[in-house]
Amino acid sequence: MNSFDHRRYRPGPAMRLPNRQWPNRTVQQAPIWASVDLRDGNQALREPMNVDQKRRLWDLLIKLGFKEIEVGFPAASQPDFDFVRGLIEEDRIPEDVTVQVLVQAREDLIRRTFESLRGARRAIVHVYNSTSPVQRERVFEQDREGVKALACQGADWVRRESLRYPETRWTFQYSPESFTATEPDYAVEVCEAVLEVWQPTPERPCILNLPATVEVSSPNVFADQVEFFATHLRRRECVILSVHTHNDRGGAVAAAELALLAGADRVEGTLLGNGERTGNADLLTLAMNLYSQGIDPCLNLGDPDEIVRVCAECTGLALHPRHPWVGELVYTAFSGSHQDAIRKCLSVQRADQPWQVAYLPIDPKDLGRDYQAVIRVNSQSGKGGVAFVLERDYGLTLPRWLQLELARLVQRASEARGGEMAAADIQTMFRDHFITDQVPWRLLGYRIDRNGHDVIEVRIGGSDGEQRLRGEGEGAIAAFVDAWTRWSGRRIGVLDYREHAIGARTDAEAAAYVLLDLDGQRVAGASIDQDTVAASMRAVLSALNRQATVECAEAA
Amino acid sequence: MNSFDHRRYRPGPAMRLPNRQWPNRTVQQAPIWASVDLRDGNQALREPMNVDQKRRLWDLLIKLGFKEIEVGFPAASQPDFDFVRGLIEEDRIPEDVTVQVLVQAREDLIRRTFESLRGARRAIVHVYNSTSPVQRERVFEQDREGVKALACQGADWVRRESLRYPETRWTFQYSPESFTATEPDYAVEVCEAVLEVWQPTPERPCILNLPATVEVSSPNVFADQVEFFATHLRRRECVILSVHTHNDRGGAVAAAELALLAGADRVEGTLLGNGERTGNADLLTLAMNLYSQGIDPCLNLGDPDEIVRVCAECTGLALHPRHPWVGELVYTAFSGSHQDAIRKCLSVQRADQPWQVAYLPIDPKDLGRDYQAVIRVNSQSGKGGVAFVLERDYGLTLPRWLQLELARLVQRASEARGGEMAAADIQTMFRDHFITDQVPWRLLGYRIDRNGHDVIEVRIGGSDGEQRLRGEGEGAIAAFVDAWTRWSGRRIGVLDYREHAIGARTDAEAAAYVLLDLDGQRVAGASIDQDTVAASMRAVLSALNRQATVECAEAA
Repeated sequence: MNSFDHRRYRPGPAMRLPNRQWPNRTVQQAPIWASVDLRDGNQALREPMNVDQKRRLWDLLIKLGFKEIEVGFPAASQPDFDFVRGLIEEDRIPEDVTVQVLVQAREDLIRRTFESLRGARRAIVHVYNSTSPVQRERVFEQDREGVKALACQGADWVRRESLRYPETRWTFQYSPESFTATEPDYAVEVCEAVLEVWQPTPERPCILNLPATVEVSSPNVFADQVEFFATHLRRRECVILSVHTHNDRGGAVAAAELALLAGADRVEGTLLGNGERTGNADLLTLAMNLYSQGIDPCLNLGDPDEIVRVCAECTGLALHPRHPWVGELVYTAFSGSHQDAIRKCLSVQRADQPWQVAYLPIDPKDLGRDYQAVIRVNSQSGKGGVAFVLERDYGLTLPRWLQLELARLVQRASEARGGEMAAADIQTMFRDHFITDQVPWRLLGYRIDRNGHDVIEVRIGGSDGEQRLRGEGEGAIAAFVDAWTRWSGRRIGVLDYREHAIGARTDAEAAAYVLLDLDGQRVAGASIDQDTVAASMRAVLSALNRQATVECAEAA
Repeated sequence: MNSFDHRRYRPGPAMRLPNRQWPNRTVQQAPIWASVDLRDGNQALREPMNVDQKRRLWDLLIKLGFKEIEVGFPAASQPDFDFVRGLIEEDRIPEDVTVQVLVQAREDLIRRTFESLRGARRAIVHVYNSTSPVQRERVFEQDREGVKALACQGADWVRRESLRYPETRWTFQYSPESFTATEPDYAVEVCEAVLEVWQPTPERPCILNLPATVEVSSPNVFADQVEFFATHLRRRECVILSVHTHNDRGGAVAAAELALLAGADRVEGTLLGNGERTGNADLLTLAMNLYSQGIDPCLNLGDPDEIVRVCAECTGLALHPRHPWVGELVYTAFSGSHQDAIRKCLSVQRADQPWQVAYLPIDPKDLGRDYQAVIRVNSQSGKGGVAFVLERDYGLTLPRWLQLELARLVQRASEARGGEMAAADIQTMFRDHFITDQVPWRLLGYRIDRNGHDVIEVRIGGSDGEQRLRGEGEGAIAAFVDAWTRWSGRRIGVLDYREHAIGARTDAEAAAYVLLDLDGQRVAGASIDQDTVAASMRAVLSALNRQATVECAEAA
């Protein structure tokens, strides 16, 4: 047995935050997005990306509209160094995009980092050191003053080195790594000491980035930490406040969202949340969350299939089918009541009105999905799904009583088979069970004379050869039923009747559905024909034939 | 191009909540867990589970310690009906476990639902109807009063039907479905009307379950909605307040956590978050989040590999490698600085002290993972990872200067090859590069006389045959170096020297590492030998041989 015992662990950080403001706010605009796919994302892969893969991911990030992209850790890795050089020397960085590189607070590494950026128009140099008690005590073996001095020393090396490259417009970024496990006042203290070195101004701000290096609390505590930081920092106006969350507790996206309420201006993350361990905040989810509430995400996410494909090729990680917004299953509904509600909402949704469809937070078409995939039918589905699929794929609008009867048949078949029913299977079942207008009787021809009421003459083929039937009534169906009754002696009630064109063309076929009362039995029938009158009569024949077949089987 | 346009959408619900309390609270204990794997989880699968799979999942849920389990929608599905009957008739429900079934507010379905439960000791009947404006208007075509009447009618059918089965201890549960999109005051109004019908007491409470049927806001808004509900409901003491969140915005876990702060007593969810569309709140993540903060999760999660296996077999969905707490990659560290910090923390972590290891929120052993998997080496790794792997797998504790030199070699090889370096590869590289004590010279034998200081006689084999060297000094290494210098005329400085036993046995081998100064060049060497003295001399020889090989190559 494993050592499963919660008593080895201590509560996470708790904040007492007087006058807390963030829960009163709502997000009004997209933050500055900073992609760390090529750094954090890359360092967490079993097989780091090769140059080709990095290029492909870079091109995608540019295409999606990212303006700040962390491209690597050039001082620690020759491929990262070479990649940065390639971007600069081959002039692959668009005018409005800034590359960012990460470096530890060590002099030799900082020097090498600046070398990698020589000739860049603009760049962000991101220096960090860890500040939490565990790291101070166990990793650095330094006290608070010691670690603060280390941060200032790093900041100063960065500042001094940058002076050697005046042709580049530098932005400095500092991260108190393991911020979420750091005493909040100490995090402020260290960052203010760094600002003292860098002397940012509102016109030339620097970036302070607060990482949830490991997620150690629910997202509200992170928001408290960020609000504490934002409200206790002097020179707040000289700083772009950034957050960088991880997903250890499954809350990376929520933590980033709440941090925006708490004052963050900028979010670091990755496409689909790739990154160390459980991954980073998924920028695609964050952006789509804004989008779904009418806020411009400031990213071009209209072709998520390309994003999913390129990410999988570069990271070797497949997307989970339930991944928010883009997973294969997230716009499907198998359950009957969901299908029913979606169908009803879609039928009244107007293109020029705000989207309001139950169970579908956005129109799947926005992301290149079609309704094909929205509703799928299995044994958990009811009439709604069956009806929807037939209407969507075959233009058949079944009346409710026919939906119910067909849905029961579909459900039984699906239970027996155990799996999803394709639309084609459902259509076949519909035809086999309800369009039974050939045996034992079939319609050979008819003539109708309308003069006040309809007089009909119908030719019916059966196993005994052709029959000629005559009848009259108000409308073709009534006349046909009358003819049948006179011939067979059987009383027929028409309980309901529906007919509609299939598709919008003038030569479209018509589908007819009829519900008869045959000696107290409710029997449904349907048919499809070019001729609307023939369709209706054949639907009646289908019902009569179904009943005859049952009676015949019972007699046998 | 798709119709990607955020202007089609409206902001999500916003709350103005005076005197908000939940952000001041922390969770102190596990909630009541209610698994909906067999219902919500099952209805969202392309292939719903067969009876075998349902049984396997049921058995797992029981083993993990779930006491409330929603087992299906028996009135809507024959397999669900049969499954419930099987549990009861085969007496598979433990004394302390309560089954729950879902049903819509319709009389025929409610009657059939109670039939499925005949003979159960205890059961929860969970009735629901949707209450949001979209569903009221587009699906039910009813106003607020109409939908409230529908809820009361359903509640009354449930109450009346239950009276027919007095042998069962019934608990009633009501969900205002689409709660998060419902006006908060109206949700309270509908639920109070239902309580009016059910007349719960503190001794016989009923369950009110607030579903984020679709996640439409960040989790703080959900918490506001729950707190509003909890504080505005009369008879709060007669109600077990439950939440049921979905993951459309990636916040299902966070929403459930914040709802607990806001007053929820109970959480419905599934193992690993399976469920409609993006899935439900993952109860495993929620429970492990509590665990990692020293709170008893009240679930037996010490063998997550079994959970992952059974879930995959039953749902057909593979786990994402970055899934919180249990994904394949979540306890790995490829990055050099992370590896370094983990190694340092582990080396001082005592078993009887609270867990404090950077980048590892819990001890992976708690979940049956071993440290083998924690640190893996690729081109993003530094000396820390290389050192850790050699120590863990081969008992070799390399000094820092040797770690650095080896790490550079490993990184270069990994960059060239593009992929993960196995521990065996790293050990081979270490041996090939640093244990070079055979060519051109090898140690044949030695004799040491210690009398005040050491006098040594060493026999060395080379391509020219055997040499006898003599020297003296303080200690064997000094004497050996002296002998070499006298013989070769070359000055040698010993900059550092380390030696350790490999493993704890008395016949353990020793590893020796030496750093020499050879004419201003720093040259490292190592060796492994049964004899600690021979090991040290052979380490010196390794360094000398390495230098000789380089010089030889340069001369050629």
